[in-house]
Amino acid sequence: MEDIKRVEPRTLSGFMELLPQDQIKFNEMLDKIKKTYELYGFLPQETPIVESSEVLLAKAGGETEKQIYSFKKGDKDLSLRFDLTVPLAKYVAQYYNELTFPYRRYQIGKVYRGERAQKGRYREFYQCDIDIIGDGKLSVINDAEIPSIISTTFKNLGFSNFVIKINNRKILNGLFEELDISDKMTDILIIIDKLEKIGMEAVKKELSELNVSAENINKIEDFLNISGTTDEKINKLKALGFESEKFKEGVQELEEVVKYVRLFKVEEENFMIDLTIARGLDYYTGTVYETNLKGYESIGSICSGGRYENLAGYYTKKNLPGVGISIGFTRLFYNLKELGLLNTDKKSISKVSIVTMGVGLENAVEISNILRDNNIPNEIYKEDAKIKAKLNYANNLEIPYVIIIGEEEVEKGLYTLKDMSTGSQELLSVDDIIKEIIK
Amino acid sequence: MEDIKRVEPRTLSGFMELLPQDQIKFNEMLDKIKKTYELYGFLPQETPIVESSEVLLAKAGGETEKQIYSFKKGDKDLSLRFDLTVPLAKYVAQYYNELTFPYRRYQIGKVYRGERAQKGRYREFYQCDIDIIGDGKLSVINDAEIPSIISTTFKNLGFSNFVIKINNRKILNGLFEELDISDKMTDILIIIDKLEKIGMEAVKKELSELNVSAENINKIEDFLNISGTTDEKINKLKALGFESEKFKEGVQELEEVVKYVRLFKVEEENFMIDLTIARGLDYYTGTVYETNLKGYESIGSICSGGRYENLAGYYTKKNLPGVGISIGFTRLFYNLKELGLLNTDKKSISKVSIVTMGVGLENAVEISNILRDNNIPNEIYKEDAKIKAKLNYANNLEIPYVIIIGEEEVEKGLYTLKDMSTGSQELLSVDDIIKEIIK
Repeated sequence: MEDIKRVEPRTLSGFMELLPQDQIKFNEMLDKIKKTYELYGFLPQETPIVESSEVLLAKAGGETEKQIYSFKKGDKDLSLRFDLTVPLAKYVAQYYNELTFPYRRYQIGKVYRGERAQKGRYREFYQCDIDIIGDGKLSVINDAEIPSIISTTFKNLGFSNFVIKINNRKILNGLFEELDISDKMTDILIIIDKLEKIGMEAVKKELSELNVSAENINKIEDFLNISGTTDEKINKLKALGFESEKFKEGVQELEEVVKYVRLFKVEEENFMIDLTIARGLDYYTGTVYETNLKGYESIGSICSGGRYENLAGYYTKKNLPGVGISIGFTRLFYNLKELGLLNTDKKSISKVSIVTMGVGLENAVEISNILRDNNIPNEIYKEDAKIKAKLNYANNLEIPYVIIIGEEEVEKGLYTLKDMSTGSQELLSVDDIIKEIIK
Repeated sequence: MEDIKRVEPRTLSGFMELLPQDQIKFNEMLDKIKKTYELYGFLPQETPIVESSEVLLAKAGGETEKQIYSFKKGDKDLSLRFDLTVPLAKYVAQYYNELTFPYRRYQIGKVYRGERAQKGRYREFYQCDIDIIGDGKLSVINDAEIPSIISTTFKNLGFSNFVIKINNRKILNGLFEELDISDKMTDILIIIDKLEKIGMEAVKKELSELNVSAENINKIEDFLNISGTTDEKINKLKALGFESEKFKEGVQELEEVVKYVRLFKVEEENFMIDLTIARGLDYYTGTVYETNLKGYESIGSICSGGRYENLAGYYTKKNLPGVGISIGFTRLFYNLKELGLLNTDKKSISKVSIVTMGVGLENAVEISNILRDNNIPNEIYKEDAKIKAKLNYANNLEIPYVIIIGEEEVEKGLYTLKDMSTGSQELLSVDDIIKEIIK
């Protein structure tokens, strides 16, 4: 092998690859998200990472399309999925007759976007999505369940300092209807979406550049400045006395959502109405959500989504309204780690490393079997090495216990259990060892 | 949306996509594999699906290379990983200084091969790999641990009718050394590997076409015909009296592996020595494994692997011997389903569906919260529908329990629990409902 040409081992920029300690934490967190989604009865879904370009790009265009990994294999145009929503739309249209509606599914998987490389931006990243898809219609109570899922998820991940911002696109759309500037709606929404980043003055300047009248800009500002508690905001919205049916519908939905969000036991400190949230895209048509970690708003929303009128119009005539959210998990993990908010204190899966001193490998195997039967992850250090090296292995991996087997142990049928955190050791029966470890 | 051009929703051939019922089973099985691997203390690893072609194809060539999904993005040559071994080699070379050896890792993930489409062959499929990588050396006892992992994995998956076939490449290599036909070794191994498929006569014919002398063909046949119990086979191998050092080493290793496989409590009916297993590739250098489901040998090996001398020679000068196995899970799942060996009786994640009759949505939300706090996956049927439709939903998804809330229930604070399998119903307190469901 000495004369072979070697290639430098490396990982592509924008692709996350973790050392074991971080990977353990990463997996634990993904697993908690999955378990939380399942507590709400969502069904698992998995779709291919590779799809026909024609299918995947049925709707895409502009910026998204440029970022997509597309390629040919034989005479087929293929693409890597860039989100989990398009595959969901395809799936629901394709298997419509075999699904039960409302179809509640989660999908956790990798998606691909060839974005410009920068810190915290990944080209391969996990999304953790849930969506509830109705057949023709879908009750607004579903919109109130979503914040409950977001809240439970982040609490199960160990966070309590988050705030779910809720809005309803009908309120914004109704506002424009009321002011008779609906033709500029999309552009205005994009500007409003930047409010937090660029501030009110810059928003007003951009609106003015869009030829929105001074009077209307003032009304928009008044609207955006609505403040107070959740209930005060709803009352102020009602007090505006707008005639627009869309506006009234939006306020009514928002009020209903807030009522049930409270019943779902989302705490007041964990949600708020934010009338500035538009979620840029013209995909969403009702309730919209963003989630921030308090004190860390600069990392952006950690969980977003909303209500849409029709999921799969590009694949089927069926009207399929839905509501859903997505956690961009890879980026979230990166940010939590950077901010020192990750508690990655587990470096091993094994709870026990079994080492022998010259004799007792048979005993080691037997003990290993018994520990496994008791659901205790363990391993035998099998290499020929000094006892110090064997203990170092456990030490490096922070395996909490070592069982040491030497001549005395084999003779007595009792084994030395060393607690690696305290250094203390005791000669115990296998039964007592198990009791000690489980305790 | 009515005038938009629609695309037919479809999934690429060779890419598995499951309905919820099968996906639940698929995930449960993958999870059992993962949990079993972790019981043996293996660390999780995850590498990108996309890698630089130069890195990924450092070693590849011939048939493999033709199957690889390669493409350009900007000026970069990229490829989708075609197995989890090459990424492991890259990873260990790249992070050598940060890993603790022996490095025990598992990786469960999708790999891509543009194979000719045929039933049961997938272009995107899961591999479930474990490997133990030594730094310079690795005890043969590790080779004995592998069958224990295979056995525990399949038992945890609910199978007991499997047999792990064990051989050692040094025995075959030593045989050729002994017969002085080592120059033809690779070709001969490929022929022997087909023994089960094509039979002894065809093997002899192919050997003869390779210009192996009649005398040597007879010796090979004698060798391949060694039969009897595991211990008889080892004794017959020893009795051949071969001088080849390699041969003797192989027999000695095999004997050691068998001894410890027994200590690891792999049952006699679940393993055997099979001297014909070569595992085609010239990658393996010692112990090799294949696993068959008894009575279903035609689906081929469901878990294979072996010992290799050096994992990462194309990336580093470090000598990194290892032993590992891989389960081709997607194909296994397909075959088990085709054979009717899958018990996919769970169509939902939810244990309870909560339905209301006009009133009591608030109560429904509260009960849902309490059930979740008690770790019981549940969902509220929130749509406006007749009670029959609401029960049908639970029925279609085979959700085992329905809680029905009407006026009487709201008044009394007791709720109707309907057992969907028996049809029986009872008016109970929430506490009693939980007790009933957990029971």
